[in-house]
Amino acid sequence: MSEVAASRSSVYIANARLVRLEAGDAPRPGGVLVEGGSIAAVALTDREQRDARTRARDVFDATGMILMPGLVNAHYHSYGTLLKGTENSLPLEPWALYTVAYGRALGAEAMRLAVLLGAAEMIRNGVTACLDHFPHTRWADVALSAHEASGMRVAFAPFMYDVFDHEFLQIALPPEIRAALETAPRSDGATAERMYRDLGSRWRDHRRVTIVLGPNAFQRCSPALLEVWRRLAADPGFHAHTHLVETRAQAVRGRAVWPDGTVAEMARAGLLGERLSVAHGVWLTPEEGDLLARHGVTVVHNPASNLMLGSGRLALATMLERGVPLALGTDSSNSGGRHDLFEIMRLALMLPRADTPEPRAWPAPRRIFEMATTGGARAIGQAGVVGRIETGQRADLVLLDPRGAELAGSPVTVPHLVQHGSATAVAAVMIDGSWVLRDARILAFDEAAVLAESAAIATEVRAAAGPALVLAETAAPFFQACR
Amino acid sequence: MSEVAASRSSVYIANARLVRLEAGDAPRPGGVLVEGGSIAAVALTDREQRDARTRARDVFDATGMILMPGLVNAHYHSYGTLLKGTENSLPLEPWALYTVAYGRALGAEAMRLAVLLGAAEMIRNGVTACLDHFPHTRWADVALSAHEASGMRVAFAPFMYDVFDHEFLQIALPPEIRAALETAPRSDGATAERMYRDLGSRWRDHRRVTIVLGPNAFQRCSPALLEVWRRLAADPGFHAHTHLVETRAQAVRGRAVWPDGTVAEMARAGLLGERLSVAHGVWLTPEEGDLLARHGVTVVHNPASNLMLGSGRLALATMLERGVPLALGTDSSNSGGRHDLFEIMRLALMLPRADTPEPRAWPAPRRIFEMATTGGARAIGQAGVVGRIETGQRADLVLLDPRGAELAGSPVTVPHLVQHGSATAVAAVMIDGSWVLRDARILAFDEAAVLAESAAIATEVRAAAGPALVLAETAAPFFQACR
Repeated sequence: MSEVAASRSSVYIANARLVRLEAGDAPRPGGVLVEGGSIAAVALTDREQRDARTRARDVFDATGMILMPGLVNAHYHSYGTLLKGTENSLPLEPWALYTVAYGRALGAEAMRLAVLLGAAEMIRNGVTACLDHFPHTRWADVALSAHEASGMRVAFAPFMYDVFDHEFLQIALPPEIRAALETAPRSDGATAERMYRDLGSRWRDHRRVTIVLGPNAFQRCSPALLEVWRRLAADPGFHAHTHLVETRAQAVRGRAVWPDGTVAEMARAGLLGERLSVAHGVWLTPEEGDLLARHGVTVVHNPASNLMLGSGRLALATMLERGVPLALGTDSSNSGGRHDLFEIMRLALMLPRADTPEPRAWPAPRRIFEMATTGGARAIGQAGVVGRIETGQRADLVLLDPRGAELAGSPVTVPHLVQHGSATAVAAVMIDGSWVLRDARILAFDEAAVLAESAAIATEVRAAAGPALVLAETAAPFFQACR
Repeated sequence: MSEVAASRSSVYIANARLVRLEAGDAPRPGGVLVEGGSIAAVALTDREQRDARTRARDVFDATGMILMPGLVNAHYHSYGTLLKGTENSLPLEPWALYTVAYGRALGAEAMRLAVLLGAAEMIRNGVTACLDHFPHTRWADVALSAHEASGMRVAFAPFMYDVFDHEFLQIALPPEIRAALETAPRSDGATAERMYRDLGSRWRDHRRVTIVLGPNAFQRCSPALLEVWRRLAADPGFHAHTHLVETRAQAVRGRAVWPDGTVAEMARAGLLGERLSVAHGVWLTPEEGDLLARHGVTVVHNPASNLMLGSGRLALATMLERGVPLALGTDSSNSGGRHDLFEIMRLALMLPRADTPEPRAWPAPRRIFEMATTGGARAIGQAGVVGRIETGQRADLVLLDPRGAELAGSPVTVPHLVQHGSATAVAAVMIDGSWVLRDARILAFDEAAVLAESAAIATEVRAAAGPALVLAETAAPFFQACR
């Protein structure tokens, strides 16, 4: 958990065009001086550029390139990267049975590879930070080591939960299926509290890795766990992240159990606040949006995952209008698909246009770009730390080469980047002042080894999941019916 | 218009895994022998593989790679590739004013570059064939030469139209705006007929380029043009392609003008048939789907463009269920975004899941992949010619390397490719037996020159469009109101 020495380097990224939303949609010529992992100066005038160049030990000539803040993937499950192409045509409730079955088949080495494989995909897509909402707490240390080695900025949010979906959703199950499902472990409050405190203190001073509370969902926690959550969340050292009203069934049942629904109940329990981010929110009402906005809770929009699992679509335009802080996420490889926030930005941009024919109500590309940068930073507890090209921010930066076929043919603007950007244009990535991708090579870790080992282990994981998959298949029809 | 000599080569692509939907979702080991631009043998058994290898002049070792049919972009406007990032937050009717204004500012050299720039983007994304629905008929020869040079398979469908949207949609315009808009040229029936017959005969025997009738839309053609369309479409040498009920306003007005709506009126006019493909169809009713299915008309689904322009969503599940032949398109760079059919396949896969919670009604990944291959082939008049890996088909093939970060970590299947594929995995592309992309280099034309020249010309185009943009801006509010 020591610091990467290279992050202390001093480099001037010269002759770039800087994406700074506060200055409008057109990138403006300039350079960035990076010292000690942070942006020491944003050089715009000739004089500032000369000064910054003089101060720097190294100069990176970014002539012809666009420099933008790294993208933040604010809801992600690393374990899924080894599960691509598995069951992907089921609604969340039955689908969850499969992803749980596969997930349990991941051993320590698979988990290490899953983290690094996801990091390789994200870095290549210009994603510099992620929030890993992590179910398999026994592998927390393995995953954390891999995250540290990945070079990425990571908010690590291990799960706690002790209420199963079939319990909360009152799914009528044959006793033998119920019994089999209930062999899965439930979090114990004292153990969970110890885990968070222990991890939190061990990683407290790390520049790139932070520990975040990761309750699976409000309805998946007993009063005992909610008490742990409430107590830990009161500690300003902890941010929290959780799933929220992802499916219609969850929303309906929440309304049946709690008089004013899940969000109001979370408010009553004292769990809403600026340090909380919630994933999905597909079934939020406008009034619930107001309540979240009042408490400063960030909603992480996962449009691809929500569509793939048939959960529906977040009312993004409404949430923006109500002032809800927003971010973007890719979710798991076996639900949302690729960890490509450009593709997710496009989806977030386009989907609200199906709901309203009034273009003034359509979220502007600039707002979507904010969700993927400053919005994401806020969601993962790094507000004001990353997300902008500004003096004092940590240096999480992405260089795009707009001269390839996909971006060429237009002066580059923010709408252009949102509608046409992708991994193809990512030329270099810096995280916390260290280059992690340059000349098409990942520098932070041995990507080739990870890729080769991932291929072998994916087959093993599928074989190991066999017996659990039988249970998933048997139980799925009952969960399907609950929708 | 002579044949590319290289397409006569003889090559055996050995040790690949072949995507053949008829054999299921898992690619199966094998090789493909290409001779004279076509697939001479699909080698599956050891003996077939030995024989094919012996017959071939060259052997390409594709160990570790996936070989799939090239993807077909069945609705595309080449001129838009120089207009990325222009107005992209307007509904179709006002947006069209802008794209027309920019489009008119394109000269011959810009058009040549637009075609090649689009080809570069498509080839890098594994797209081997496109239908270019082409408005600026005065540049038809320039565009056709560029298409031929691009190495791609192209169905070239120059526009005809003589009814303006403001006329059909009865948009109330101030006289001076109306007069200004009506300075735009209208097709003359005799001239249009001569153009199609002339181009058709000049390109008749080309292996990669075919001429397709390209009426802009049924409602944008006077009776005189419809008569030209009907007469030419009766010639089995011509396929036809047109826009169809893209927006609500078009559907509503179509119902007001014709007793049973646009599709029934097209049937009455004798325009529906197996050699017709129609783009969008967002506002088709299930009954209109039945009518199109009965006539064997292919509907080209453009999900990204339809969302971006606020047109809505095609009822894909309904159309599949009704037996409508379907294909996929990316539309224009300034509406649909990237020319990446993997991203479009994902969108086509996901969107219907927002409409119905019943997973049995969700189009399977395999159906979506068919839309992008055999469905696309049918839409562009190449049914049975391309779209499958089968003896006798033209050799339009894409090699994917599944060992990169985005695909690694899972055994590759069709659902896996649909959910995770992209340009990143495209390792080589062959069209009509010629390699057009290998080792990250486009071989068919000088991509670097095209990219460099495109950058310069895009700025010129924007400047040249200036006066026309003023008109677009003045007229837009009236078109906005018509929705």
